[in-house]
Amino acid sequence: MRVMSAKEFKINRDVEQGTPEQNEAVRSIIAQVKQDGDAALARFSEQFDRVKVEAGQLRVTEEEVQAAYGRVEPEFLTALREAAGNIRLFHEKQRRQSWMDLQPDGTVLGQIIRPLKRVGVYVPGGKAAYPSSVLMNVIPAQVAGVPEIVMVTPPATGGTAGIDPYILVAAAEAGVKEIYRVGGAQAIAALAYGTASIPRVDKIFGPGNIYVALAKRHVYGVVDIDSFAGPSEIAILADESADPAYAAADILSQAEHDEMASAILVTPSAKLAEAVALEVERQLKLLPRRDIARQSIDNYGAVLIVDTIEDGVSLINQMAPEHLELMTAEPMSLLGKIENAGAIFLGAYSSEPVGDYFAGPNHIIPTNGTARFSSPVNVDDFMKKSSMIYYSKEALLENGHKIMTLARHEGLEAHARAIEIRLQKEGKL
Amino acid sequence: MRVMSAKEFKINRDVEQGTPEQNEAVRSIIAQVKQDGDAALARFSEQFDRVKVEAGQLRVTEEEVQAAYGRVEPEFLTALREAAGNIRLFHEKQRRQSWMDLQPDGTVLGQIIRPLKRVGVYVPGGKAAYPSSVLMNVIPAQVAGVPEIVMVTPPATGGTAGIDPYILVAAAEAGVKEIYRVGGAQAIAALAYGTASIPRVDKIFGPGNIYVALAKRHVYGVVDIDSFAGPSEIAILADESADPAYAAADILSQAEHDEMASAILVTPSAKLAEAVALEVERQLKLLPRRDIARQSIDNYGAVLIVDTIEDGVSLINQMAPEHLELMTAEPMSLLGKIENAGAIFLGAYSSEPVGDYFAGPNHIIPTNGTARFSSPVNVDDFMKKSSMIYYSKEALLENGHKIMTLARHEGLEAHARAIEIRLQKEGKL
Repeated sequence: MRVMSAKEFKINRDVEQGTPEQNEAVRSIIAQVKQDGDAALARFSEQFDRVKVEAGQLRVTEEEVQAAYGRVEPEFLTALREAAGNIRLFHEKQRRQSWMDLQPDGTVLGQIIRPLKRVGVYVPGGKAAYPSSVLMNVIPAQVAGVPEIVMVTPPATGGTAGIDPYILVAAAEAGVKEIYRVGGAQAIAALAYGTASIPRVDKIFGPGNIYVALAKRHVYGVVDIDSFAGPSEIAILADESADPAYAAADILSQAEHDEMASAILVTPSAKLAEAVALEVERQLKLLPRRDIARQSIDNYGAVLIVDTIEDGVSLINQMAPEHLELMTAEPMSLLGKIENAGAIFLGAYSSEPVGDYFAGPNHIIPTNGTARFSSPVNVDDFMKKSSMIYYSKEALLENGHKIMTLARHEGLEAHARAIEIRLQKEGKL
Repeated sequence: MRVMSAKEFKINRDVEQGTPEQNEAVRSIIAQVKQDGDAALARFSEQFDRVKVEAGQLRVTEEEVQAAYGRVEPEFLTALREAAGNIRLFHEKQRRQSWMDLQPDGTVLGQIIRPLKRVGVYVPGGKAAYPSSVLMNVIPAQVAGVPEIVMVTPPATGGTAGIDPYILVAAAEAGVKEIYRVGGAQAIAALAYGTASIPRVDKIFGPGNIYVALAKRHVYGVVDIDSFAGPSEIAILADESADPAYAAADILSQAEHDEMASAILVTPSAKLAEAVALEVERQLKLLPRRDIARQSIDNYGAVLIVDTIEDGVSLINQMAPEHLELMTAEPMSLLGKIENAGAIFLGAYSSEPVGDYFAGPNHIIPTNGTARFSSPVNVDDFMKKSSMIYYSKEALLENGHKIMTLARHEGLEAHARAIEIRLQKEGKL
């Protein structure tokens, strides 16, 4: 693993816009699903997933879900259920209530905070089908009170149209009752516009390949979307008190995700820097996914030496990493200075996988520097607000003229007259 | 104004994607600003606004702002300040605190809720430069605690490069200290990527023309954006108790906005329907903006007759209007049944302009049916969350094995080993 001065390190990020060809493909898929509905879905599943799925077979049956329970290990199910319980508890603390502000003149203002009615969760197929991500997307929706939670996931390629049993079990445990075997941009189009078999949703969550990501960008506005997930990242800010073996293990847990994953250690200690770099090499060789981790470490990994821990904090704030581990003697002394980081892990025992799987906070966290302005998936993402205005007659008579002044300044006479007509009737003009 | 059965009424909405030519123009403008910075801004201001603005003149000076105060009427300033106070009070009630969850095994989990660091507010030029919208975008940012609030607005065309004094006063009253005279897609690009004169922001708010809207869509992901504003809409759900003159005046206050604005009355009362339609015609003739209102009413206005008030509620929920007025004898009895509406006005005195200008709730509200999944601008839009995980040694020793089970199932062995190495060191393996 490269050790370098922080000054040599460049952060170069941009947002994935896709090639013109990819965008055109996605635009065409969406247009066809909008026009032909289920028939288009069947066509694209055959074309892209090499599976025949007729409209009548789109929905995963209750029997399939039950059968899936027979195919997962009891040990897995126990751990999954306990994780689900922790995730539920953490997200329940985020739940908010509608509120009112009662004013002495009789006016009542309020903010009505309610769950979305119907949300769709995209779950990728193949190796990226993670039961933990199903929990992380679905449980906050359920805690928010979303009555209709829909999952879409591509059918196994090559004819069986089956869905991974672990995904089905995770979905059932999280409370999903409606699952469709369809993936890709066509699944996003179906969720956004609806088909005869799949009623449209209000918001789409979940990661996918470039076509899925572009399709989400295309339909944004027709429905809401969660975000654009980039490759996973960790930054570790450590001082000499850190255990190099722990730091290296956590770096590798990020690096094994994919070749684009990024893992950065930031430290003022040259001694720790060297020790971690050596440990990474030692541990890496023993990993089953060592080829992936190797590429990630070589291309996107680095040990950066800073002058002081404060310089490290400032570098972290520029990076806005998805995951940040504070492995210092006194991590709490740094917490208030961290401006940008999606999830912050404090101390030697808060290894990132604790948060990935089990502790309760969400593992879907802003990547690619977007922690500057966005947040881990949370209950608010599944709720919407409406304003409530009950304006009293007394308040209108008192304030009507000021409202008319402001409206007339903006050249909106009909706005002023909507007030004026009421004041006239009450004899106040 | 057309009176028809609700059954004849079609809602047909889609999201504005722009023509390929518009998208290409926007892509090119963004690329040039990214590459040439301030020089590109000067070029585009000259090209599109016919104004020469060199980099050194981009920022509006303190003197210009002070001079603007001399150009607005005292009556306007008084009303504006009172409105600003009400908006501030309503939004202060939305402010949230970071929280922690302390667990008996020593684990501490939390959600850190903080303001964004720097946001940009786009204010259109010309007739759409509304001081009230400046307040509605800026005050929530200020209440959230955003330390850097930047405004961009196109310079007056034709050489003066001046900014409307009312806009400058509203900005100053709301607390903006940094204003740049630049508009269009080039302003959005500058906010997203930064130039030598305009440091980049974390999120962009505010409406604009089609080029501004497309530019926001393009940079979404590099920065966050607020939403895509469509034409303004009102729906009024009324029974026989409603005053037809009030309903008509409120309909017209919407219709005068622009030719695409939509105003719909929904009622089970044929008598009210006819009376409102007549009143609309009567009042419309007297309006200065009658040509705009006429087109809006003819193309997007309707009085819809439903069988029962419950049918009206269900129609409203399908429409998801930006503004909803409940003009019935007992509006509170309907409030709980309204699922989708951006802002809900109850009773005879809660005329929409009350909310547009003065009461306190935000007037930037989801349009075009997006109240299904989005919310009026609010303090949360200016904040972000980070998760905090302090996992105790005790918790890790207790739960480490379950975390390893879940990680190994997903094929992520390095995740399991990051836990395992700690359990080993503690003699728990």
